[in-house]
Amino acid sequence: MKRSPTTPPLLLTMGDAVGIGPEIIVQAFRRGAAAGCVVLGDAQVLRRAVAATGGLLPLACIEQPADAATLPPDCLPLLPVPGLPGPDLQDGLAALPWGRVDARAGAAAARCIEHAVALMQRGEGSAIVTAPVHKEALAAAGVRFPGHTEMLQALAAAPGQPAPPVRMMLANDELRVVLVTIHLSLRAAIEALDYGAVLSTLRIARHAAARWGQPAPRIAVAGLNPHAGEGGLFGDEEIRFIGPAVQAARAEGIDASGPWAPDTVFMRARRGEFDLVVAMTHDHGLIPVKYLGVEQGVNVTLGLPFVRTSPDHGTAFDIAGRGVADPASLIAAITMARQLSSAVD
Amino acid sequence: MKRSPTTPPLLLTMGDAVGIGPEIIVQAFRRGAAAGCVVLGDAQVLRRAVAATGGLLPLACIEQPADAATLPPDCLPLLPVPGLPGPDLQDGLAALPWGRVDARAGAAAARCIEHAVALMQRGEGSAIVTAPVHKEALAAAGVRFPGHTEMLQALAAAPGQPAPPVRMMLANDELRVVLVTIHLSLRAAIEALDYGAVLSTLRIARHAAARWGQPAPRIAVAGLNPHAGEGGLFGDEEIRFIGPAVQAARAEGIDASGPWAPDTVFMRARRGEFDLVVAMTHDHGLIPVKYLGVEQGVNVTLGLPFVRTSPDHGTAFDIAGRGVADPASLIAAITMARQLSSAVD
Repeated sequence: MKRSPTTPPLLLTMGDAVGIGPEIIVQAFRRGAAAGCVVLGDAQVLRRAVAATGGLLPLACIEQPADAATLPPDCLPLLPVPGLPGPDLQDGLAALPWGRVDARAGAAAARCIEHAVALMQRGEGSAIVTAPVHKEALAAAGVRFPGHTEMLQALAAAPGQPAPPVRMMLANDELRVVLVTIHLSLRAAIEALDYGAVLSTLRIARHAAARWGQPAPRIAVAGLNPHAGEGGLFGDEEIRFIGPAVQAARAEGIDASGPWAPDTVFMRARRGEFDLVVAMTHDHGLIPVKYLGVEQGVNVTLGLPFVRTSPDHGTAFDIAGRGVADPASLIAAITMARQLSSAVD
Repeated sequence: MKRSPTTPPLLLTMGDAVGIGPEIIVQAFRRGAAAGCVVLGDAQVLRRAVAATGGLLPLACIEQPADAATLPPDCLPLLPVPGLPGPDLQDGLAALPWGRVDARAGAAAARCIEHAVALMQRGEGSAIVTAPVHKEALAAAGVRFPGHTEMLQALAAAPGQPAPPVRMMLANDELRVVLVTIHLSLRAAIEALDYGAVLSTLRIARHAAARWGQPAPRIAVAGLNPHAGEGGLFGDEEIRFIGPAVQAARAEGIDASGPWAPDTVFMRARRGEFDLVVAMTHDHGLIPVKYLGVEQGVNVTLGLPFVRTSPDHGTAFDIAGRGVADPASLIAAITMARQLSSAVD
């Protein structure tokens, strides 16, 4: 990765203030893994996380992302987000108890994301890395999106235009999986699958890969059924629309293949036969990514006009504030965001 | 594993004569990995496999399994199976072209399996390890079973009794997965799942584990839906019957837990939290078992009155006779059969 001195920083949103987000951000900086990142959030919340993780870390409040370049390397550049509860108030965010759903924490988390997108649109960031938010806290705050992905999708839409189609990619050092369906029951996922959903996924994946410097990724498409249907014996989705979508993608110049048997395609990708695997369902794709250790997984949103990654875990309210949360997945998300955005520059 | 001199041998069926079965058997013996096994099959077929794999290996035809104990250790004990085409005929099995579906090869493979079960029922074998058969060759021979599992199930039934319920377990050194459904479309698998199917799987798994010396296995039950349904938000199968079946199993003294999120339960089992994972669908279970390398996987049939294992691959007609087939999965199947049957003795 080569970054010129003028490359804007990665924007790191603090996530839910009473979850593990702030403390894993602090730990990532302490380990020297967040160089070149600016944290968007609340100074008192980050100071509480420094205290909770038992150690020192200087914080410097900055006025714009580019100011981070002028700071000494061992300090955490914090960009206070406008519209958060004042840090000096008795009832500021840092006074909220750890690990309890709170509308104020939900609202603050949403504000940080909005601000990050606005900065990206002004060219002041190179990518967004989001610390975990809590679905119930967002809902309590009246935020009309269940999570990051839907919110980023809406924020990234051009004025008056529909939101761009996005897909979730889960990635670690040895496997990158793009999901056609995500948070649906398995029955509903099967109903939601069709020719357009598969072809659109392949186009989004190809486009995203081109942006991160891989113009012709070898994309394997996993089937839906055992043995990819075994010629129609165990289901016909492969024949009816998965295979035709692969063919249509090939006609557009996408190096797609399949549908392959789900039980061996991930192993083949891990061995280097493919660059990306498209999976029809949440668990076909996530089981192999997580199998070797959940802390290695990084969530990447494809289809946005900018790079966005996040750790592949939630707010972990049960351990928040105890200083024991593992920053490994956040560090992997930062590393991945650097890799994916450096090719875009 | 401790085996007394009077332990009967493992019975190794040769599989389809024109597939890779005979040559991986020969390679397993050459590597010293098949000690204590008797091969059930045709002498000429095995001799052709010795030639195809470029090397020497003495064959000794024996009359009953126990005779193998009297042979020198570097030789392959072959028990000719009655009813096979004569080895000296021009049109014997060893004259068939490699890798082409043939009714005679299918019929011979089925005869070897029947003979192996008969020997097990007479106490002359400690377990059955089956080399691959070809579904179309069995069908061409008029065999009314699509594969080993169904055939063994029928052969193992007591006279006049229905076949015992069986389940497929896929296992390697770090993960053992028992499948509730196998060769069905994903839609049909969802329809086939119910309280009885899950509870029956847990009973079969507990019973099998007790036979291999693990009386109280920690069994994790994977859910069907993403996040195991997330409290009914992404599907209700977990609430309607998977959870209740787990509770019923616990009431019977089975150490079952779940339903757990499918995307992390296999990783947790790999780390040692569980001894077995019950998976609702073919690919939820097989993706993690195969992820680290298909040649490590062993197929174990649970629910039979004897131990039966097989390699987790097919006849590989495309490479049969070329001496390049990898015996690793067969060797793993032999090792697993030894482990599982030694506790039964």
